[in-house]
Amino acid sequence: MKEISNLIAYRPDVKVVDATMRDGGLVNDFHFTDEFVKALYLANLRAGVDYMEFGYKASREMFDDSKFGKWKFCKDEHIREIVGENATDLKLAVMADVGRCEKSDIIDRADSSIDLIRVATYVNTIPGAVAMIEDAAKKGYEVSCNIMAISNVREGELKAALDILGRTPADVLYIVDSYGAMYPEQIARFVDMYMEVAVKYGKKVGIHAHNNQQLAFANTIEAVGDGADWLDATYASMGRGAGNCAMELLLGFLRNPKYNVYPAIRFVDTHMNRLKEAGVVWGYDLQYLMTGLLNQHPRAAIQFTKEKRNDYTEFYREVVAQD
Amino acid sequence: MKEISNLIAYRPDVKVVDATMRDGGLVNDFHFTDEFVKALYLANLRAGVDYMEFGYKASREMFDDSKFGKWKFCKDEHIREIVGENATDLKLAVMADVGRCEKSDIIDRADSSIDLIRVATYVNTIPGAVAMIEDAAKKGYEVSCNIMAISNVREGELKAALDILGRTPADVLYIVDSYGAMYPEQIARFVDMYMEVAVKYGKKVGIHAHNNQQLAFANTIEAVGDGADWLDATYASMGRGAGNCAMELLLGFLRNPKYNVYPAIRFVDTHMNRLKEAGVVWGYDLQYLMTGLLNQHPRAAIQFTKEKRNDYTEFYREVVAQD
Repeated sequence: MKEISNLIAYRPDVKVVDATMRDGGLVNDFHFTDEFVKALYLANLRAGVDYMEFGYKASREMFDDSKFGKWKFCKDEHIREIVGENATDLKLAVMADVGRCEKSDIIDRADSSIDLIRVATYVNTIPGAVAMIEDAAKKGYEVSCNIMAISNVREGELKAALDILGRTPADVLYIVDSYGAMYPEQIARFVDMYMEVAVKYGKKVGIHAHNNQQLAFANTIEAVGDGADWLDATYASMGRGAGNCAMELLLGFLRNPKYNVYPAIRFVDTHMNRLKEAGVVWGYDLQYLMTGLLNQHPRAAIQFTKEKRNDYTEFYREVVAQD
Repeated sequence: MKEISNLIAYRPDVKVVDATMRDGGLVNDFHFTDEFVKALYLANLRAGVDYMEFGYKASREMFDDSKFGKWKFCKDEHIREIVGENATDLKLAVMADVGRCEKSDIIDRADSSIDLIRVATYVNTIPGAVAMIEDAAKKGYEVSCNIMAISNVREGELKAALDILGRTPADVLYIVDSYGAMYPEQIARFVDMYMEVAVKYGKKVGIHAHNNQQLAFANTIEAVGDGADWLDATYASMGRGAGNCAMELLLGFLRNPKYNVYPAIRFVDTHMNRLKEAGVVWGYDLQYLMTGLLNQHPRAAIQFTKEKRNDYTEFYREVVAQD
């Protein structure tokens, strides 16, 4: 059991990362209005959020930029149109997927308003991740590495991957529960495994949770209690499928007085609820429970949602049959 | 950290209690159709649920029975119309609130299809609870005692209450997070405190959680990991305000092969979603997050919901001002 003083006080090293536009962008193909993005930036500033992730640095060779909003590509000039010189304490991040981005799209940090490159990788593309981490670090960025879908990875391979990443310049190693399949007890074990590497190599540990079983927030506060410092959240849980840890829940939990829940509630009230009313659909529902429970990729559940199906029982039969 | 073998195996003593009609009845004033109740009974049988709570044994002197559905009063003949002789492994329960029921409405168990009387009390009505527990036990029932709203109770008083209850014939002592205010770490501490009394007096410990901060399921699985055996859940989380731990999540988590999640999913698909479509409103939303975070009774949030207000920011100002 954790020390009760740790629940009353706080750990100054904790960082909150707003991933609304990046993970939420997967829901609406990154079609956020500039008004929304500016309001989100201001909400993050007022709420005391540490990092704001604008979206992906996706390859325009692989993705048709007429089919997506601009935040799938996060050109430096587009970010600058929102934040100006960003003379604030809020740092800016983008995600770069191994195999789906071009190193040449990442310019030197000195010429960019971006502070943090978040390298996302599967366990079978670690060498590609290492190359991207080294490139981003050389260009002057803070770097995190998000190992996705670890609920399906064998322990030995994950340990080997962590040891390789420990020897890179990455600052933060992220636990990513892509399928929303993990229970807090399992998160505790993953944090233990990551912390061993983090302590050895001087890294931080982060957590990115999904809400398939209504555990994104619970898993996030389990992780922070176990020593993870970097916490991803999204306003109103907006994110792929069942969404993520809700920013408004997380800020209510954290005890550091630099965080304020009120601007988060106001932003959800004003902007996120408007997105929902406009028909953008995300968040916990039975179909995501099912894929989470079965530790499956949520793609079938997302398709079910897109087709506006509501035959949940039939869907359960389908996903169990595919299992 | 709990033993990994405990996560893979299961504890045979665990009991799942379906509280859909009792806590959910607070949402629709107990107006469930007989068709719904019969389908719920069958779903519980198929899902392997251990106890089904039909509603309250409320005093007809205090409550006008023309204003409520029959499950606020749970007459024995009404239960029998649903279950017949109930020659099944599913046991039947009702809740009796201290100060809001008549002992004379509880007939001898030999003449009733009810197996379990759940005595609900606040910490300041423990002597009344003791009298009801003794009465129900004398009549032959299994008895649990649910101490409500413990997030607002001083530790010394709660310990004194538990020690008094330990000396009654109650079989189960319940942790009840009425305000949805507690985090898993706090649940762990409460289970510890309850377990000490339970071991001393040969009782079991139960958990009844609310979902104001999307933690009802997380708090329930935290409690079972710490030693609580009796777990309340409701289909689709139906319950007062933000609702409860979802049955379909809990059955997916439990490893005992007697439990089946498929009938639970089918029941939610067919019956709970129909209630929602008919306009019955419950479940996690911002207003419940706020009262949970502030450790307040959810009545203001329920009123906000009933009035179909959506000015969440203004509501936050109101509840903070009242805090």
